[in-house]
Amino acid sequence: MSDRLPLGRVAIVGLGLIGGSLAAALKAGSLAADVVAWGRRESTLQEGLRLGVIDRYSLSLADAVRGADLVVIATPTLVVETVIEQLAAVLDAHTVVSDAASVKANVVAAARRAFNPAQLARFVPGHPIAGSERSGVGAADAALYRDHRVILTPLPESDAGAVALVDAVWQAVGAEVVTMSVAEHDRILAATSHLPHMLAFTLVDALAAQTQQRDIFRFAAGGFRDFTRIASSDPQMWHDIALANRAAILTAIDDFSQHLARLRGAIDDGDGAGIMATFQQAKAARDRFAAMFSGAAAGAAKNAYHQE
Amino acid sequence: MSDRLPLGRVAIVGLGLIGGSLAAALKAGSLAADVVAWGRRESTLQEGLRLGVIDRYSLSLADAVRGADLVVIATPTLVVETVIEQLAAVLDAHTVVSDAASVKANVVAAARRAFNPAQLARFVPGHPIAGSERSGVGAADAALYRDHRVILTPLPESDAGAVALVDAVWQAVGAEVVTMSVAEHDRILAATSHLPHMLAFTLVDALAAQTQQRDIFRFAAGGFRDFTRIASSDPQMWHDIALANRAAILTAIDDFSQHLARLRGAIDDGDGAGIMATFQQAKAARDRFAAMFSGAAAGAAKNAYHQE
Repeated sequence: MSDRLPLGRVAIVGLGLIGGSLAAALKAGSLAADVVAWGRRESTLQEGLRLGVIDRYSLSLADAVRGADLVVIATPTLVVETVIEQLAAVLDAHTVVSDAASVKANVVAAARRAFNPAQLARFVPGHPIAGSERSGVGAADAALYRDHRVILTPLPESDAGAVALVDAVWQAVGAEVVTMSVAEHDRILAATSHLPHMLAFTLVDALAAQTQQRDIFRFAAGGFRDFTRIASSDPQMWHDIALANRAAILTAIDDFSQHLARLRGAIDDGDGAGIMATFQQAKAARDRFAAMFSGAAAGAAKNAYHQE
Repeated sequence: MSDRLPLGRVAIVGLGLIGGSLAAALKAGSLAADVVAWGRRESTLQEGLRLGVIDRYSLSLADAVRGADLVVIATPTLVVETVIEQLAAVLDAHTVVSDAASVKANVVAAARRAFNPAQLARFVPGHPIAGSERSGVGAADAALYRDHRVILTPLPESDAGAVALVDAVWQAVGAEVVTMSVAEHDRILAATSHLPHMLAFTLVDALAAQTQQRDIFRFAAGGFRDFTRIASSDPQMWHDIALANRAAILTAIDDFSQHLARLRGAIDDGDGAGIMATFQQAKAARDRFAAMFSGAAAGAAKNAYHQE
């Protein structure tokens, strides 16, 4: 274990699957002396207590984070901005703050607006690429982050000790920590996660609009089921992500649309060689990805759905 | 069993997964006295014989189909057109012909060009919506069609007895037979199968082009894996389908592109209500589809990949 661990007090702000699983992993690994949660609904916090995921909770954010070595914000994406504003008024001088939101630019912008320079230096934006088809603290799993990637996007102002602490916590719960810039994170996630969700939602919505005469979904098979699985994701969560990562998602949609227009042109022209080249390149890349996925990151395979 | 069964001789033209599985099912159910196969590669035909999937084979199409009550063409999509031309010269007067191609308009056009009126009346276009991630006669499975849909697209000229015979064969191997027009088949398959494949190939190809700096696939998770699984499909097969169903696929791409442009506009405008409406409608439709899929057509679930 890193010599930065175990911590004294860790506060989890927002006790759903992501925050609850981190809390459970901290307790399972004896990585913190005291794990306290804040949330808006007391019934959720009581459930966390009953499940042994946390040591205690408070409905007051100030109380929950008082004396904490680390605060991890694990609320829905757009709520993180509000939480940061509220934290600015109540954080202890030594507290390190991180978060688990799927988009980083809006979170960092909120931190730059709300935090003073000392607070900003102890803010380490993060994003665990993990999840489950289930949600809520009832689905909390101390092993959720094992063999999953966590991306940290430290700021130029970030204190090296704060970054090392957050890195040590995620590694201690089994994750592989990768560091990159905020812009690169948001661009990569737009491409590999946000864009596919936009395409899946769009496809199913477009087909549903066509079923006046005959239910065309009756004739869909296994490939369609896999392709559209992510269209069953939580609309509110993806609404938040679409707005929070607007610029990168628009760029990803435009890049995709250009490639689709090119394939459309090849089909329209009967350009068999062009069609084959696209399909072959795609298959080769997808087969490489599948091989990689079934290798090092095999633990991720348990998550058919995922929060990312 | 229908009083049209068992048949005397059935000829399978093209002995891959689809033809081989039908042959195996015919033999397993004693639905034909004699199952003969034609193919271009003798090693494949020998394998079929060794596996007990067929009774005999010929490298001569004329020999293979001589005296057949039923010929089922199960070659790759674009090859069906050539086979139909060759069959026209050698078919017996009583032989019924069907096929298993994923697109019907090009096959029907070839039949109208090649067959005389009597042959055309005994031609019953068909499409079993089934498959497997494996291919080739070595993967032949007598149970492949059980609880799967087979779409027949009889022509105005089709003889009712010929249609009833093909219908009886597919039902006898466990399939649910649905009848629709050629145009409706090609439109529905374009929407539920061909378009998703075009999108998956396009997405993976577009992302692969972006990985100059960092391998962005490393940061993809379970949702991406499911979404892109069909991009690992056989490029040649999908090349054939893209060309054979060109008009319907172009229409499907255009309809999808309009919906994507609308979502793009909502994201660009920060129109949260519009984004939510799209995602909620999509999730509701996808959840209905998933419930339907896990119900009556549960047998299809075994096919993560599929030929359709």
